[in-house]
Parts: sequence; C-alpha cells; structure tokens
Amino acid sequence: MHPFKFEILHTSSKSSARVGRIHTPHGIIDTPNFVAVGTNGTLKSIDNELVNNIGLQLMFCNTYHLLLQPGRDVVRKAGGLHKFINRNMPIITDSGGFQVFSLAYGSVASELKSQGTKKNDGSVLKINDDGVLFRSYRDGSKFLLTPENSVEAQKDFGADIIIPFDELPPYHIDPAKLEISLDRTHAWEKRSLDTHLKNPNGQAMYAVIHGGVDRKLRIKSCDTLTALPFDGFAIGGSLGKTKSQMFELLEYTLPRLPKEKPNHLLGIGDLESLHTSIPFGIDTFDSSYPTKAARHALILTKNGKLKITRGIHANEFVPLDATCDCHTCQNFTRAYLHHLFKANELTALSLASIHNLHFMVELMKEMRQKILTDQI
Amino acid sequence: MHPFKFEILHTSSKSSARVGRIHTPHGIIDTPNFVAVGTNGTLKSIDNELVNNIGLQLMFCNTYHLLLQPGRDVVRKAGGLHKFINRNMPIITDSGGFQVFSLAYGSVASELKSQGTKKNDGSVLKINDDGVLFRSYRDGSKFLLTPENSVEAQKDFGADIIIPFDELPPYHIDPAKLEISLDRTHAWEKRSLDTHLKNPNGQAMYAVIHGGVDRKLRIKSCDTLTALPFDGFAIGGSLGKTKSQMFELLEYTLPRLPKEKPNHLLGIGDLESLHTSIPFGIDTFDSSYPTKAARHALILTKNGKLKITRGIHANEFVPLDATCDCHTCQNFTRAYLHHLFKANELTALSLASIHNLHFMVELMKEMRQKILTDQI
Repeated sequence: MHPFKFEILHTSSKSSARVGRIHTPHGIIDTPNFVAVGTNGTLKSIDNELVNNIGLQLMFCNTYHLLLQPGRDVVRKAGGLHKFINRNMPIITDSGGFQVFSLAYGSVASELKSQGTKKNDGSVLKINDDGVLFRSYRDGSKFLLTPENSVEAQKDFGADIIIPFDELPPYHIDPAKLEISLDRTHAWEKRSLDTHLKNPNGQAMYAVIHGGVDRKLRIKSCDTLTALPFDGFAIGGSLGKTKSQMFELLEYTLPRLPKEKPNHLLGIGDLESLHTSIPFGIDTFDSSYPTKAARHALILTKNGKLKITRGIHANEFVPLDATCDCHTCQNFTRAYLHHLFKANELTALSLASIHNLHFMVELMKEMRQKILTDQI
Repeated sequence: MHPFKFEILHTSSKSSARVGRIHTPHGIIDTPNFVAVGTNGTLKSIDNELVNNIGLQLMFCNTYHLLLQPGRDVVRKAGGLHKFINRNMPIITDSGGFQVFSLAYGSVASELKSQGTKKNDGSVLKINDDGVLFRSYRDGSKFLLTPENSVEAQKDFGADIIIPFDELPPYHIDPAKLEISLDRTHAWEKRSLDTHLKNPNGQAMYAVIHGGVDRKLRIKSCDTLTALPFDGFAIGGSLGKTKSQMFELLEYTLPRLPKEKPNHLLGIGDLESLHTSIPFGIDTFDSSYPTKAARHALILTKNGKLKITRGIHANEFVPLDATCDCHTCQNFTRAYLHHLFKANELTALSLASIHNLHFMVELMKEMRQKILTDQI
C-alpha cells in the first residue's frame, strides 16, 4: 500500500496555479482536479463501475449519511467503503459536521451563501464542547457525533483522505460568537488529528480552515492549523455572499498555506469558480454541480451550456458535443436526450450525468496541460 | 436487408412448446423469448447500449407515447426508431389502441384483469368506425388515430414487427357489445393490413386475436384473422380475471393459430405465466414485469425472488445471485443494493433492472434448451 504523498510537477510562471500528483493507498489523483460528490456511496444515477471508467480520480462521500445508512458496522464488515461500493480509486469523506450543523441552523449550504434562515428542526438535541447529539431522521435513534468518533468512522470507512470534525457557524453570526466557534473548531480539529495519528493507516487528514469572511479569523485559522501536522488543508466555512468575496478570501488565504501540501476547496465546483480559483493554486474542488446540472437537463460542452429540454434541440441528430468521446455522445443524439427528458425517463438523468462528469474530467486534463505550458 | 421469416427448429415431444427463430431486418429473435417494454424508446433507468449488451433480442415500444413525444416527424427525420434510440436489434411497436382505449375506459390494464372502474377522463373525444379522436395529454392538441395512420406511423418508426389498430373493450362489457367491438376490430385490422401491404418494406405485421374470455368469439377471431395474410398472431384483449382463465383460453386458442407462423402473448411476462404458457406453444411475451419488479426492489434469481430491502440483506456481502454474470452481480453485493434502495438512490433502480433483465434473457435460453431436449 502506497502511503499518502504529494508532489508538485510544475508551478505556472503566470500565476500560483500548479500541477501535482497526490499519491494515496488507492492510486493517484492528478491535480488540479474536480471531485464528484457521491453522498451515499454512489453518484446520483450512475453506478461506480461506470464512474471508474469515466476516470474520475477522487470521489467525495458523506460520513453523516453513511453513518445513518448503511451504518458504520456494515461498511466495516464489508471491508471498508471501497469494497462496499466497488470503487478502486481514491475516496475522500467529510466529518459529518456540515450536515449536523445544517440540522441545527437550517441549511448550512444556504447559510454559507447567507440565503438561509435559522431553523432548528428539532433533530439536534445538544451542542457542546464534547460534540453534537442529534436524532437520526431515519429511525429517531440518538447519535452523538464527536471529533473522536467521526474520525474513527472515517477510519472504518477506509477513506484515503479524511476531514476533521468542525463546527459550521451560520453566516449571520456576530464576530464574537464566530471567534468562539473558531476556537471550538480548532480544538475539535486537534482532537480529530490526535485520533487519526493513533493509527494513520496510510490515510491522510486535511484540516479545514475556518473563519468565515473575517480576514483576521481566517488568518488565525491558517496559522493555528498549519502549525499542526495535517497532510493537507481544506478551505471551508462560509466563503462569502458573492464570488468576488470568495476570490478575495482565496487571495489572502492561499499564500498562508504551505505550498508543499495539497489543498482543497470545499463544496465549490461551478465552472466560473474553478477557472478563477485554480490560478490561486487550488488543487482539488468538490461539487455536485455537474451531476445536479445534468439532472436539470443542463449539459456542459466546450462551447458553453445547453439546456437540452429547449425546443431547438428536438431535431438535432448530433451528439451533445461533437468532440466528446463519452458513452453518451458516442451512442446518443441531442434529439434523443431531449426526448428522454421530455418523456421524464430516468435514463435521461444517467446519460446527461455521464456526459457532464466526463466533461469535467476532460476539462481538468486541459487545465493541467495549460498550467504545464504556463498558459494559466 | 433480411425479410421477415420464421423457422421452427424443434417442437417438444412432451408439449406444444417449440424452439424457433424469427428473422427480421434487424437480426434474429430466438423463441420462445421475453420481450422487454421500452415505452418511450428506452427501458426505465437503463440506456439502450446497456440493453444491447444484455442481449435482449426484442424490445417493445409504444406508438401512442411516441406519437405524442417526440412525434412521428422527429423519428422519421432521425432515420427511424432504431437510429433514434440507438438500438441495433429488433423492435416491435403496438398500434396505440391500448392506450387510447385506456383513456376512454379507465386503465385497460386494470380492465383486462377486471379490476378497473369505467372512467373517461375526457381526453377521448370520439370513437367511431373511422378511429379514435383524442386530446394529447402533453399540449391539448387533437389527434385522430386510425388504422391507416397508426400503421403509417409504425412504418415511419421502422419497427420490425407492427401491430394493427384494434379496439380494447372493457372487461365488463355485455356479450352483444363485445361482438360488435370484435367486428370493428376485425375491420380495423383488415384496414391496417391493407395499409401495411402497400409497402411491406421488410416489416412484419402480427394480427391481434380478440374476443375476450368468450370462447365462441375467440374462435371467430382466430378464424377471421388467420384467413388473412398476417405474418404472425398476437393474443390480446382481456385474457380473464385469473391465470387459470388465461390458460384455458390459451388451450383453445393456440391450436387454431397456424403452427408455421410466430405468435405473441400481449402484456404477459410474469414467471408463472411464462412457465405455463410456453408448453402451449407461445413464442414471445412482452411485459414490464422484470423492470417494474426491479424498481420495487424485487430481485429475480434462480432460487426465487428476493425483496432486497428486507433487513436480512443488509449484511450480505455476496452478489444478488452467485451464479449470475450480469454487470450488477459482477460488481456489487446484496448489501450494497439494499443500501442504495434504503438511501433512495436512482442507481439502485438501474442495477436491479439490469439484473432482472439479464435473468430473463438467461431464463429464456434455459427454457429453449429444455424444449430442445424435450423436458418441457
């Protein structure tokens, strides 16, 4: 088994963009790279054998969901997540923090973009320095999620990259409370790391840099966490209301992360963000955007996006993208995809998702090539 | 292009079961065989390239649905249904009659089993000797479906086997009205055949034997339709309330069909019916049962059916069927399928459907082998 290792092959002369290679127990991740989200151990509407064939090198699974279904025991008995879901390439799991704090504060996803309203649906019973006590939405049973047992679960899962347990404060938090939350997150991440280091097992742990959009706190978070022996650094928490706020944040955050370690931008993967973030030196991104877009009939192509349900596509007997060699483009036409969406066929969702994922894989190859030739 | 031809390779010494081979412009159908239903030009949740690989030799598409979406013009411009949906094996289409009469009488599927209640939702505007006038559920536009234009549409689709336009009377019809309906159906089927024979184009047309569960009318239908130069005979209409009623019907109907022509049992494909019908000499069956069962987590195996969502399967790290070489069984376990269904993942539907279809293909191979060795 290969232990975790990161090597930088080239840094652009034009920006901080770099091409690298992350070695993991389940193979290599070429960077920069896009990470697809397979919450429950599958991408939506595509099986993992197809995903393996598409060449998607890193897949993101959610610990919170997997803890509730199928549960930690089942995955352990299966011999880990890779065997359970039949994936032979690397997997990254999160800590479950994002989801339990979504339960506490309403949608964290909305909160991070400041669109949410605070709403506790009653399933989070207690939050203290120990961890978070919540009720399973599946059967009402109580779960206590702590830094220690989140990491132990990710150990059982056998994830190649694991994420420490953190607190996700809502966007609309006052600065004093944000700092208290940040200190708790730092303590939790330290406890997570201690748990991890008892039995590293070839796995890597990325810290999560927090601090919301408060520059001082972001810098404090960088300084605190980079002093600890994490294998990489993820940028999490609220990244601002707007894209320009996020880019500003990346501009002052990235230089404070050690260049020799890989970094990850959590939950961001739309095309604009990706094009703008890579020059700052971002190595990996995860997002459900390409598969979610696919399920909404939005097709990514080199010439822009197609809304395949538009009437104009009903008679186009050509592939989604004439230059694409994905399963969908090799076998089916725009007119047929248009028809499948109009007829509400599940096949539409699979075929569009396969194409969009393949598009992302190819796009990232191109971007790496552009960095290697100093065009980015 | 090979014209339509049927050859019988062996008739069992034990029953009327026979092994045959239907030659069509798009290849061979070994009989007896199961025909999967791909209403809108796709099976539910599996793309046609996968279906081609499973080796399903005949696929059933529904003219009514295809006329409304994508419409006859689109399929014609695509170069026919095979090109439009990317299928390189034979296709059978129906006339649209079943669906328009469902609109008129409530669910014909329920009616045929005598479970329905008469209900016209208002979309059928007029039924007379000319045909049926109805409103599109998609955009409210009016469609007139006649024997002539149903067949012309199926010509445009390029189906290997086409079905004449027929009337589907409700189960609870009085005998006098049933005979009037039967006479109309016979007239419509004759007009359908005349339209077909103007331009046979290598396609075949199977008559549909009607008469409900009235023995006298069934025999009349056999006598009337076998006197015409149809290429094969489908058994349609109400086949009774119970399976034993259906088997009784087959017992007196099959001997009245010409042995040298292929026959088809419409809308029947559950395992019990299949095992009981083949000894009567049935050549093909169509049914959405295996894919519908799959979407309800019901897995077909050589050792019986599994309800994969049952708790007992949560920890079974073995294939759905240890002897199966389908994509699903080669790559995934019962525990994983159980999990995907519990987590409401669309992938569950695809993987279960692939397995059930593969099961049917293998089952039919075995049955043909048993007939060849006079075991059935």
